Amino acid sequence: MRIARVGPAGQEQVVAAGSDGIWHLIEGDDADLALRTALDRPALDDLPVIEQVDRFGPPLGRIGKIVCIGLNYRDHAAETKAEIPGEPIVFLKTPDTVVGPDDEVLIPRKSTKTDWEVELAVVIGREARYLDSPEQALDHVLGYAVSNDVSEREFQIERGGQWDKGKNCETFNPFGPWLLTADEVADPQQLGLRLWVNGKQWQNGTTADMIFGVAHLVWYLSQFMVLRPGDVINTGTPAGVALGQPDKPYLRAGDVVELEIDGLGKQRQTFGAA
Amino acid sequence: MRIARVGPAGQEQVVAAGSDGIWHLIEGDDADLALRTALDRPALDDLPVIEQVDRFGPPLGRIGKIVCIGLNYRDHAAETKAEIPGEPIVFLKTPDTVVGPDDEVLIPRKSTKTDWEVELAVVIGREARYLDSPEQALDHVLGYAVSNDVSEREFQIERGGQWDKGKNCETFNPFGPWLLTADEVADPQQLGLRLWVNGKQWQNGTTADMIFGVAHLVWYLSQFMVLRPGDVINTGTPAGVALGQPDKPYLRAGDVVELEIDGLGKQRQTFGAA
Repeated sequence: MRIARVGPAGQEQVVAAGSDGIWHLIEGDDADLALRTALDRPALDDLPVIEQVDRFGPPLGRIGKIVCIGLNYRDHAAETKAEIPGEPIVFLKTPDTVVGPDDEVLIPRKSTKTDWEVELAVVIGREARYLDSPEQALDHVLGYAVSNDVSEREFQIERGGQWDKGKNCETFNPFGPWLLTADEVADPQQLGLRLWVNGKQWQNGTTADMIFGVAHLVWYLSQFMVLRPGDVINTGTPAGVALGQPDKPYLRAGDVVELEIDGLGKQRQTFGAA
Repeated sequence: MRIARVGPAGQEQVVAAGSDGIWHLIEGDDADLALRTALDRPALDDLPVIEQVDRFGPPLGRIGKIVCIGLNYRDHAAETKAEIPGEPIVFLKTPDTVVGPDDEVLIPRKSTKTDWEVELAVVIGREARYLDSPEQALDHVLGYAVSNDVSEREFQIERGGQWDKGKNCETFNPFGPWLLTADEVADPQQLGLRLWVNGKQWQNGTTADMIFGVAHLVWYLSQFMVLRPGDVINTGTPAGVALGQPDKPYLRAGDVVELEIDGLGKQRQTFGAA
């Protein structure tokens, strides 16, 4: 089942679609309605049909936390001249950075190094705390979505200390268009990820190339923090970001970024000035 | 005005006290009631009196994000053999790490380096976004509280990458007992901070020794992220943490940590095993 939230920003309604792809309205207005719908997977046939979607919002109305994994593809570690990590690198994004998949993304004031990162987002459906092994981990995954882990490289790397400073700018996490429940993803390690800027393709990867796969990440993170329903994991990006290019083609106001993951839909953002 | 949330975990009620220190019940049950009470500062005289408080919960029912500042006291930077930062070091804690000031704190499984950090917590009351100068910043501060920025030093420093891995374990942010509104804090840079473990004092600092004061921090952070009402800034800890001692006296199950800040009350946690 696909779950989405559609309508004007701040007034989204939850919709769900089965294998026919037809969006049906889910009644209710609490912040966790999308999460509950994905957990319950109700029968849709008798629910009102939504003929046209003008805007997708983020597919979750309330996200607990966003845990991000750094340097999780070998080719991306290589292009950024970083060592292959021996265990997952973990940083955080705050949920108030999340916008819809096609919303404007703001380049921060004084930014000259705003970059893109297409990522598989994992949504947690069941609490994960000190899991015994990665084999248990996928039982805690509710579904998958597309994230753009937008990053300001100067703020992240050159301004002292921790990466979080370049990862939490306003609008820096386009999310969606929909959450696809895990039962419809045959293998989360066999998904293609692609990203274009102004029509030119920059990223063309597969989750098969992750250093640490989804099951390992959920198990690993559960040793350090409690993962709760509605939490999101951004699982890292493959090669092809601006930071990895000789000429560093960072984003400018007016640029259009498009990204997609197999089965999870496509995002399209126009970048603007904060 | 002091604002607190009292009662069993998950069933707290909001209370407020004026200069006489008498707690009055604030009616309502939405998650933002404490925040709204601190913003509105209602007249308390006609509200029911709470004779006895059995437990303080965290003084906010819903925290948007917790932004933490690292190495913000010269003596703490020195004891951890770190350089004095040229600009604030920023990392994040997730709001689901927050517990009441006297609740049990869990030492993570496989942890051998769980440490304490008494910190002045700043609560945001008005959105701060690209502030022009530090002079404007205190207008965005709603009030102050005590945080224990509990840290696992192996997870933070020795496990690859970013500090967040050692800062976000379950129960790692005791918060409270109360929020004191900013109008009752004559100077946030003149507050004493103290911490004891099993009755032995380890930290005895003053916010006068911050490298970057509260106004600078709020202004600085607003250049990188949007600070919103209900967000919290943990402003760093003075010298005296276990990491800074020759014999590294990290916490063990059964240890009792007490900490206080002038005017902001006292916390007392017994540490247990996760």
